[in-house]
Amino acid sequence: MVVSLGPGFPEYIIPRAQEALAEAQVVVGYQTYVDLVRPLLTDQEVVATGMTAEVKRCQVCLDRAGNGQRVALVSSGDAGIYGMAGLVLEMCAAQGLKVGPPEGGLEVDFYLEVIPGVPALAAGAALLGAPLMHDFVTISLSDLLTPWETIMKRVELAAQGDFVIVLYNPKSKKRDWQLGAVQELLLRHKDPATPVGIVCRAMREGQATMVTTLADVTTEPVDMQTIVIIGNSQTHAYGQYLITPRGYRDKYQGQVSGEKPGSRVRG
Amino acid sequence: MVVSLGPGFPEYIIPRAQEALAEAQVVVGYQTYVDLVRPLLTDQEVVATGMTAEVKRCQVCLDRAGNGQRVALVSSGDAGIYGMAGLVLEMCAAQGLKVGPPEGGLEVDFYLEVIPGVPALAAGAALLGAPLMHDFVTISLSDLLTPWETIMKRVELAAQGDFVIVLYNPKSKKRDWQLGAVQELLLRHKDPATPVGIVCRAMREGQATMVTTLADVTTEPVDMQTIVIIGNSQTHAYGQYLITPRGYRDKYQGQVSGEKPGSRVRG
Repeated sequence: MVVSLGPGFPEYIIPRAQEALAEAQVVVGYQTYVDLVRPLLTDQEVVATGMTAEVKRCQVCLDRAGNGQRVALVSSGDAGIYGMAGLVLEMCAAQGLKVGPPEGGLEVDFYLEVIPGVPALAAGAALLGAPLMHDFVTISLSDLLTPWETIMKRVELAAQGDFVIVLYNPKSKKRDWQLGAVQELLLRHKDPATPVGIVCRAMREGQATMVTTLADVTTEPVDMQTIVIIGNSQTHAYGQYLITPRGYRDKYQGQVSGEKPGSRVRG
Repeated sequence: MVVSLGPGFPEYIIPRAQEALAEAQVVVGYQTYVDLVRPLLTDQEVVATGMTAEVKRCQVCLDRAGNGQRVALVSSGDAGIYGMAGLVLEMCAAQGLKVGPPEGGLEVDFYLEVIPGVPALAAGAALLGAPLMHDFVTISLSDLLTPWETIMKRVELAAQGDFVIVLYNPKSKKRDWQLGAVQELLLRHKDPATPVGIVCRAMREGQATMVTTLADVTTEPVDMQTIVIIGNSQTHAYGQYLITPRGYRDKYQGQVSGEKPGSRVRG
């Protein structure tokens, strides 16, 4: 199982993930995230490794699952968004393993369930109010696995499409200039007054949010546990919130109780 | 409070949301979603309305919260992604209300907390394996609140940027041609063999997934409770899964236990 832990605090981990941890014989993960869920563990074996040992972690999971053990590979946020779900599946494929979901009824080397979670983009957006109410793009600024030109091209296309832009991995100890380069590029396409929300450590110890403008973004409060959300042309600040409207104005102004059919927000 | 319910089954609702429902005096929502959480309710007053009564629902919340009641406005998936968080904040702003988070210590007309959830895009991606492991865009095909030309422009820019593309609201009873139009446009930019995943009713009654190609997408299994995920140029099928790789191949081929620092998946 690949188990998403959500943003951090246990009240944000779905019951299915908590159950999967309880059922596991081995829990594998990055040290920081294993520590986060230790209160949820009993007598499971724990294999915790450092930051850059992703391949090693996945291999431990494949080996143990191949031996018939119930393994939980933990991943913060949602495991399917820049998380561990992809690498573990890539390695299964590269090693010719057959995997499938528990309910699939197929002949497999082992079962694999990806348990989703609250992604950082949703946790961060919730703290900012409602910045993601319209079409958005999610871009990682880490150029370790993606050429920088590709990242910049994507940022530019996102601006041309007036998408809300969510930036993951805006900065790390060794990468401190990327966010400034993105800001500079975006200022060529977007209003300098475009609202920007910065959320550090959403729903975990040390949580902080900040609302600023594209012109005033600084990298100071930003780190690896931060996401940055840049509004579209309609996004506006409201107190300490950001709102990206969705075209309802005609419906709630002047005719609050007589709206016509046709609006389409998911209830 | 705006309470995200996640995809559907109670094991996918975060504890914070369950607690918020338990604490509420009034629960407001679209009939279908209120029914979903009825087992979690005790003696709360329930105000359930039909599909297109979003403005009315929000106004009920504003009125009740203004009278000092604890209100939970429920929204499926994540309330911040095409959900109810935006409209309720828009209406607060339009009516000149002061709202803020419970821990803010500000003088407000009432407190407002947006509780995030597992969005449909994460639930659907989990069932498909790992299609969202690289930069992606999320686009709603509903042209009721957005001009169709804007939607098509965004689809085209997403293709040019080789983003993974997540389509919300691909079809409804009255809108049946949009997905075909998007497919036709994408076929001008992308390989017809590009893998596409279709997920209906992720983690709720009637769940179904399908992996196909861009050339073979049909609207047949698609409805309003469906999301469609279109791969980037690197996405490949693996059994019944989709994998969008993230540039790790050098790291896990041939040197499984000796990988170099520098990889950067969130643990």
